[in-house]
Amino acid sequence: PRTYSLALLPGDGVGPEVTAEAARVLDACAAAFGFAIETSEHPVGGAGLDADNDPLPRATLDACLDADAVFLGAVGGPQWDGVDADLRPERGLLRLRARLGAFANLRPVAVSEALAERSPLRPERVAGTDLLIVRELTGGIYFGRPRERTETEAYDTMRYSVTEIERIARVAFEWAQKRSGRLTSVDKANVLASSALWRDVVSRIGADEYPDVALEHLYVDNAAMQVVCDPRRFDVVVTGNLFGDVLSDLAATLPGTLGLLPSASLGGRAGLFEPVHGSAPDIAGRGLANPLAAILSAAMLLDAVDEAEAATAVRQAVESVLDDGPLPPDLGGDAHTADVGAAVADAV
Amino acid sequence: PRTYSLALLPGDGVGPEVTAEAARVLDACAAAFGFAIETSEHPVGGAGLDADNDPLPRATLDACLDADAVFLGAVGGPQWDGVDADLRPERGLLRLRARLGAFANLRPVAVSEALAERSPLRPERVAGTDLLIVRELTGGIYFGRPRERTETEAYDTMRYSVTEIERIARVAFEWAQKRSGRLTSVDKANVLASSALWRDVVSRIGADEYPDVALEHLYVDNAAMQVVCDPRRFDVVVTGNLFGDVLSDLAATLPGTLGLLPSASLGGRAGLFEPVHGSAPDIAGRGLANPLAAILSAAMLLDAVDEAEAATAVRQAVESVLDDGPLPPDLGGDAHTADVGAAVADAV
Ligand SMILES: CC(C)[C@H](C(=O)O)[C@@H](O)C(=O)O
Ligand SMILES: CC(C)[C@H](C(=O)O)[C@@H](O)C(=O)O
Repeated sequence: PRTYSLALLPGDGVGPEVTAEAARVLDACAAAFGFAIETSEHPVGGAGLDADNDPLPRATLDACLDADAVFLGAVGGPQWDGVDADLRPERGLLRLRARLGAFANLRPVAVSEALAERSPLRPERVAGTDLLIVRELTGGIYFGRPRERTETEAYDTMRYSVTEIERIARVAFEWAQKRSGRLTSVDKANVLASSALWRDVVSRIGADEYPDVALEHLYVDNAAMQVVCDPRRFDVVVTGNLFGDVLSDLAATLPGTLGLLPSASLGGRAGLFEPVHGSAPDIAGRGLANPLAAILSAAMLLDAVDEAEAATAVRQAVESVLDDGPLPPDLGGDAHTADVGAAVADAV
Repeated sequence: PRTYSLALLPGDGVGPEVTAEAARVLDACAAAFGFAIETSEHPVGGAGLDADNDPLPRATLDACLDADAVFLGAVGGPQWDGVDADLRPERGLLRLRARLGAFANLRPVAVSEALAERSPLRPERVAGTDLLIVRELTGGIYFGRPRERTETEAYDTMRYSVTEIERIARVAFEWAQKRSGRLTSVDKANVLASSALWRDVVSRIGADEYPDVALEHLYVDNAAMQVVCDPRRFDVVVTGNLFGDVLSDLAATLPGTLGLLPSASLGGRAGLFEPVHGSAPDIAGRGLANPLAAILSAAMLLDAVDEAEAATAVRQAVESVLDDGPLPPDLGGDAHTADVGAAVADAV
């Protein structure tokens, strides 16, 4: 049968719990849709530090570079707060993104009528929101050189090349074509040179290659306001690494829980799939975590390896669990992580 | 009598209308509290471009450098969209901030029960919010060098010196002491070298000089989420120029209108006072603009020149207009800009 090699990186906190459920659902899909998954498990983040004194151990990286897809639970926790800057759990994640060439981070956010009731926003303003943030993930100020810290000052470099902007713009325009035909590009072109280039390149790619997509540009301060005041105005949003970090977390507040938000980071051979929520050390190990964000990230993984039917089945199974339960605590139920995952796997 | 020289920079769009009302209220204060104001008016932004082909004409800058305080209405508008990057209306504002040495931008945001009803957030989550954002305004990536754009790439430098961080931290700690004794510092220290320095310096100033203030650090992505999910948790927030741009606009959405939000930029000889709202070209010249943000900025101006009694009188007058009208359109009334301003001046 078609066989996919999958590197599972459970990581820290609730990471292992939700990763186990994502793996369970993927196995159910393999059985139901006639493909095979060969999984291997590897430490990353704090777990990597504990195992190998490295948040991205060499063997973990090698396994990821060999895999067809990488699934990551979550990284970080208070027990590693004291480590050197270079060894922090997040550093492992940043290096993994870069080494995988995963330059396009996709974060869909949808707010159903039911979720709108949990939103910090007025339900009538947010219900029906359905947007996709396309964040550039391997460039910008996260990776720009030079960067330095001396006794008297420190600096970072926000750098984008035309090539980097072109390739992320194309990913975003393709998604806009598949969705509503609208794309919002976010920058700070009235202040930053890198943003002025960003704006010009995105405009050129739009005019030359995607004239059918309606492109608008927003400044990042204005975009942040609009996410709160009028989230339904957005369909696909494309932006740089730092602005994307802020805007995607901001948009993640709209459904009132992080428990349903998946992400995919694509661009290299293997994609990296992770729930948007963090490691949540306060609830780790107690079966309280909602595994649905991890499971929906697994659906994005199935799409990426072209198992579209299985991906659709997972999404439908999640919908049916949302309708009929069992529900985890963040959605008002009292089901354990494993019970929710098992219900989805059964529905598949 | 005590005499203050005031440079009025009405600027573009609704700027002139709201500046006129702020000036009217300041004149009423002078009469009521026995001081004198010598005002002069100067073009800035698009008006500067039209008058002198410069968004900050030399004569305007000189007048500002000589003044005791500078009041600015708003800059920008579609008619100047085509001008060179260096000549854009906003550039005039950025240069003015830098030349005035106005490194500390203060943006208070308060949400009364009445305003909570207009908020995009659920009223019960946002009512009672009362926060102050202290944004570093003359450093960071807005002014860092080198910055360059070539055919193939562009870059900006986010740079902070220990001295710049120390002085803005002290401003924020002082405000925290005057208010609730709590300070939140926002950065991206898990990724950026400049943020790691920021965090260490703010911590050191806190420990050495303000041990009575409770200091917490948040990453900017998390801070953006908290502004939406739990705005009441914040009292004083201190952050760099770029993060402050986004967070202060985000916080500005909480009251449901920009029409009441003032700002002050302090640090040099003369402070710069401006409403948070922009030039709103779509409603300019029609008496539809709410002048209360400009008038509350004038109250901050009075505080800065140590006319605290007059400042309090202005705030009380604004409260009484909010209670009894006349109200401008954004607050549900139909009073003209000038009628609202006149009502505040009368109440003073
Ligand atoms: C953990 C951190 C380095 C990371 C980022 O800033 O990219 C996280 O916030 C994210 O958005 O995935
Ligand atoms: C107009 C623009 C340059 C300015 C800024 O980014 O500082 C504005 O957004 C503000 O916040 O005052």
